Amino acid sequence: MRTVVIDSGGTFRLEQRPDPVAGPGAVVVRVRAAGLNAADLQQARGDYPAPPGWPADVPGLEVAGEVEKVGPGVTGVAPGDRVMALVGGGGHAERITVPADLLLPVPEGLPWEEAAGFPEAFSTAWDALVTQAGVRAGDRVLVTGAAGGVGTAMVQVAAVSGAHTVASVRRPELHDRVKALAPDGRVDVVTPDQEAGHAPYDVIVELVGGQDCLQRVALLRSRGKVLVVGVQAGTTAPLRMFDLMLARAQLIGTTIRGRSHAEKVLLAATVRTSVVPLLAQGRLRVPVDAAFPLDQFADAYARLAGPGKFGKIVLMP
Amino acid sequence: MRTVVIDSGGTFRLEQRPDPVAGPGAVVVRVRAAGLNAADLQQARGDYPAPPGWPADVPGLEVAGEVEKVGPGVTGVAPGDRVMALVGGGGHAERITVPADLLLPVPEGLPWEEAAGFPEAFSTAWDALVTQAGVRAGDRVLVTGAAGGVGTAMVQVAAVSGAHTVASVRRPELHDRVKALAPDGRVDVVTPDQEAGHAPYDVIVELVGGQDCLQRVALLRSRGKVLVVGVQAGTTAPLRMFDLMLARAQLIGTTIRGRSHAEKVLLAATVRTSVVPLLAQGRLRVPVDAAFPLDQFADAYARLAGPGKFGKIVLMP
Repeated sequence: MRTVVIDSGGTFRLEQRPDPVAGPGAVVVRVRAAGLNAADLQQARGDYPAPPGWPADVPGLEVAGEVEKVGPGVTGVAPGDRVMALVGGGGHAERITVPADLLLPVPEGLPWEEAAGFPEAFSTAWDALVTQAGVRAGDRVLVTGAAGGVGTAMVQVAAVSGAHTVASVRRPELHDRVKALAPDGRVDVVTPDQEAGHAPYDVIVELVGGQDCLQRVALLRSRGKVLVVGVQAGTTAPLRMFDLMLARAQLIGTTIRGRSHAEKVLLAATVRTSVVPLLAQGRLRVPVDAAFPLDQFADAYARLAGPGKFGKIVLMP
Repeated sequence: MRTVVIDSGGTFRLEQRPDPVAGPGAVVVRVRAAGLNAADLQQARGDYPAPPGWPADVPGLEVAGEVEKVGPGVTGVAPGDRVMALVGGGGHAERITVPADLLLPVPEGLPWEEAAGFPEAFSTAWDALVTQAGVRAGDRVLVTGAAGGVGTAMVQVAAVSGAHTVASVRRPELHDRVKALAPDGRVDVVTPDQEAGHAPYDVIVELVGGQDCLQRVALLRSRGKVLVVGVQAGTTAPLRMFDLMLARAQLIGTTIRGRSHAEKVLLAATVRTSVVPLLAQGRLRVPVDAAFPLDQFADAYARLAGPGKFGKIVLMP
């Protein structure tokens, strides 16, 4: 099969490799589409190694495709089933082995490229906002970097949770599309300099990072929370600790990739039960910025690294 | 009565003022001893104003003494009762008005100076470690600045909770006294450069602050917590956000002074029920570094601001 690999210099290239096999409890998925994430670029830079048990040199954290082979001990899954999954790496290839307990069903009629953009963004968004921050109806939520893959998911999860959502998007030309993510209109789209005018917030979702990002602690309501989910624009920032103390606020760091398999199975079960049905009903959707065939991987990663995206970038092997 | 006041230049002086009166739901306490806290110095610098309803220009956040007058509607309290309380300010005076629902009983035989050093330190320690961080038997807890007033309380509360406690104390000559705070020996006393050798920690209590303090996030176990309680040595510090994300850690800021009266009443009830009995049994104790008569207030604040303290500084009006 063909697969993208990260070579020792940190650049991507295509390579021919043997097809994977379905071990006990696992299935082989014929990948039809695979989402790109900032983590793929971080991994190529050597900052974010794949967890044990996953291909160490193949990017790709989320896939959608058909089950091709079923390993020993797997029940309830058959060849031909349309599935998607958040994986620990190895998604940017024609085939991948996935533990069966991580599989999510692809809703009928959902295009592959949209399915491929769902697992990472919406697992991250639901886990952070609902499970960890406990966002409830009436809360005020600020999402930074709201036009990106995870950002568009966060805005929608906050909106379906009944929160009043403020989406911060640097480029005005993307504002209308972000506004349209919540059909009930409960989203205000602002530029970063307008965030303070909509404060205070119960929850701030940090998806950008950079030198000034922790100054947003001053925009929190008493007992508010900042979820630190993405820091692409800069990974170290000064924190005014008095702001944190006086607001009795919490700064919560989160990633999914490094969790134990048991925790990932639990998260997959939550997403299967609570989030996939909303996708099937059309109450959540996956905006796809661009889809590329596998051999145009370089264009895809360049688009991911560049500005002005709305939603997900997808490879279609 | 005589009272310390903070004048407009931020310095302390003694002043004669009218005795306070006991309004509805409140009592007048004849102060026998009053604890000093870093917050008194911060208030003098203009950084930490008193909350509404408390004297704006009189320092002093904790007192012990006898009830002298009882206001309308107060039940269960009589003149002559030995009481102590965490107050919003005004403690460094001969008399103070205190809402009756904040009063704690002083255990029989406990000297005034020890009673005066109990409310702030132990309310802060219990609220942070037990109520907020949920410290349990077997947890590993690092307390920085462990020889100070709040530090000695944190070490003891962690120890009685069954945690394995690492107490960080810059001055080696104080180590034996900190070690003796936990009679069962479950405290390791280290210098700051030795903190990493005892990692990972479930909970880190930050009582010092300063430029490097948030580097301690790298010493956390997965899902660990840093409680930011005191930042005297520097209130802004860089945070490496990847450390927070990869550990899925939480940075929790806390103060008591700015809370609503209802929250303070709840905290006082918790302390009355769960912490004062441990003090009465001798399982918790209040180390007093030095006690000064009221007219030596300048020496007392200087001692508070200086290095090498073990436990609390107390004024005795």
